[in-house]
Amino acid sequence: MPTETIAWAGDHVRIIDQTLLPTETKFLELRTIEEVWEAIKMLRVRGAPAIGIAGALGTIVGVKGSPAVTWSGFAEDLNTATDYLATSRPTAVNLFWALDRMKRIAESVKDQPVSAIKQRLLDEAVEMIEEDNRVCIAMGEHGASLLKDGDSVLTHCNTGGLATASYGTALNVAFTAHRLGRQVQVFADETRPLLQGARLTAWECMQEGVPCTLICDSMAAVVMREKKVTSVMVGADRIAANGDTANKIGTYMCAVLAKEHGIPFYVVAPRSTIDLTLAGGDEIPIEERGAEEIIAGFGRQTGPSGIRVYNPAFDVTPHRLIAGIVTERGIARSPYTESLKALFDE
Amino acid sequence: MPTETIAWAGDHVRIIDQTLLPTETKFLELRTIEEVWEAIKMLRVRGAPAIGIAGALGTIVGVKGSPAVTWSGFAEDLNTATDYLATSRPTAVNLFWALDRMKRIAESVKDQPVSAIKQRLLDEAVEMIEEDNRVCIAMGEHGASLLKDGDSVLTHCNTGGLATASYGTALNVAFTAHRLGRQVQVFADETRPLLQGARLTAWECMQEGVPCTLICDSMAAVVMREKKVTSVMVGADRIAANGDTANKIGTYMCAVLAKEHGIPFYVVAPRSTIDLTLAGGDEIPIEERGAEEIIAGFGRQTGPSGIRVYNPAFDVTPHRLIAGIVTERGIARSPYTESLKALFDE
Repeated sequence: MPTETIAWAGDHVRIIDQTLLPTETKFLELRTIEEVWEAIKMLRVRGAPAIGIAGALGTIVGVKGSPAVTWSGFAEDLNTATDYLATSRPTAVNLFWALDRMKRIAESVKDQPVSAIKQRLLDEAVEMIEEDNRVCIAMGEHGASLLKDGDSVLTHCNTGGLATASYGTALNVAFTAHRLGRQVQVFADETRPLLQGARLTAWECMQEGVPCTLICDSMAAVVMREKKVTSVMVGADRIAANGDTANKIGTYMCAVLAKEHGIPFYVVAPRSTIDLTLAGGDEIPIEERGAEEIIAGFGRQTGPSGIRVYNPAFDVTPHRLIAGIVTERGIARSPYTESLKALFDE
Repeated sequence: MPTETIAWAGDHVRIIDQTLLPTETKFLELRTIEEVWEAIKMLRVRGAPAIGIAGALGTIVGVKGSPAVTWSGFAEDLNTATDYLATSRPTAVNLFWALDRMKRIAESVKDQPVSAIKQRLLDEAVEMIEEDNRVCIAMGEHGASLLKDGDSVLTHCNTGGLATASYGTALNVAFTAHRLGRQVQVFADETRPLLQGARLTAWECMQEGVPCTLICDSMAAVVMREKKVTSVMVGADRIAANGDTANKIGTYMCAVLAKEHGIPFYVVAPRSTIDLTLAGGDEIPIEERGAEEIIAGFGRQTGPSGIRVYNPAFDVTPHRLIAGIVTERGIARSPYTESLKALFDE
């Protein structure tokens, strides 16, 4: 069983503090909604699926002490809690999705006593964790069919258990193949500016006992030319109906380099990441972040004060560069407009 | 006149301490050979041409107090000095080249009194600085013919004045176009792991008043797709007879990305970088450096202790990706086996 990134511990939320990794492994007990909010804001818990779960569990913490005895009183407290949590990371789509889900669930049982509504919300949050585990395990199994003995996977950013409740998305494919007894290894891009690859992916590989080599992002090209990797596997923040995929900045670079070197490039992401209402990647908004992440990121200042910085947090990889999109329902292939849609057929 | 990176100041060597940039501009007076050795070793002076000049000036500092009155006595002191300096950066080709040049010059006037030999060595070192300036200015002028109003150049690592005596190589092309009154701008890759782009190139652009935008290396692909840059210009550590070019790790990535986006990729380097005895890039040895540059580079530790790291300091860009090689004798174009050779014709 991998590390539990986030869990419900009877009366509080338990998370591993990701800002202290890889040098310190510390679990935090979050007992107030303010503590959950701070943990999301400060990236102590990050990764789209994990943030969604943090939102759901944060809602539980926020309303469990509600003195309301009527639906309208409780609904007010519930809205206050979800509105507050929504401000912790205003660009995290999964956070809003999870908060909405909690509100809809409460609404669906609003005729019941408040204590029953509270129990229903807790059941739902726990179900979200179990659902996340089932989905990650299924993606890992489908994806592992792409890896054989001796394969080596280049990955970007962190898509391991730390990004989800426990198992992870793209990184879990290599881990699943490893658990099935195949000799696989990982090359991890450090992933500037926030170094999730160096801090988190490398740490997870060491925990799991999967051989891992850490490189700077700019070394991916050489690693490919030297045939040190046989495939690229990355996660996704959002996938459009045509397969265009938004993911951590640097993903598009990996895809272009993979094409040049004849290496298959796979996206591994749950169906919840696919947004069929977006025709193509042009419609995905890209967050720009501050200069300090680049010029004063990890210790001393490394760029001149006042320098202009361009810091897009994500980029969009066009579907033509993607060999397959691995989901919990199987692997979608080109043409994606058809194959992605089919994933939602009953 | 740009900043003097390294100069002879009458009785000592004066350098700008590049390890303190961009937050502090401090000049050092190096009065002993040990101080010069330490400055090279600790990267206070770096960049192939600048290291060569540091070697020549370090030799002067090392032998000026020599009490020898005969050639054989002086030759012994000279060898001690150059052998010692050669250990400061054992992979710097330009350093050995400069030390050899000093020894050959001394040998050529060995029949003269020691005081005259010392003067001849000093003249030679000063001539090396002036030669470097002439070569850089000529490269800047040839290269500037490739830039028109509104152009924007992506560059990697630092190839500005800080890498040479004063003017620089690839970065000086944009600076020359700017001095000619053209509106040009620079996009600077930060250049992991040692961040020469963030620390040095961005600082030089601000000093020169050339608009500069700093990005992480993994953002170069997006900057190209968004048509924010119109060409890529980089330096070179070594160029083989067929045009294959070894340069700072990440250069090959830039070249592949430039090809994908239809953007011309130029190398700007003096003829002294071209080694016609090497048939192709496969023959260029690539230095691998330590893990600590990647996991503990600039402040706090960002990777797990004990993680395997791959840290090649350079990569080789194949000639087919290079639109032109700008030298002090003009711009060589494909086929390079012919055009590079022609640069050495009288």
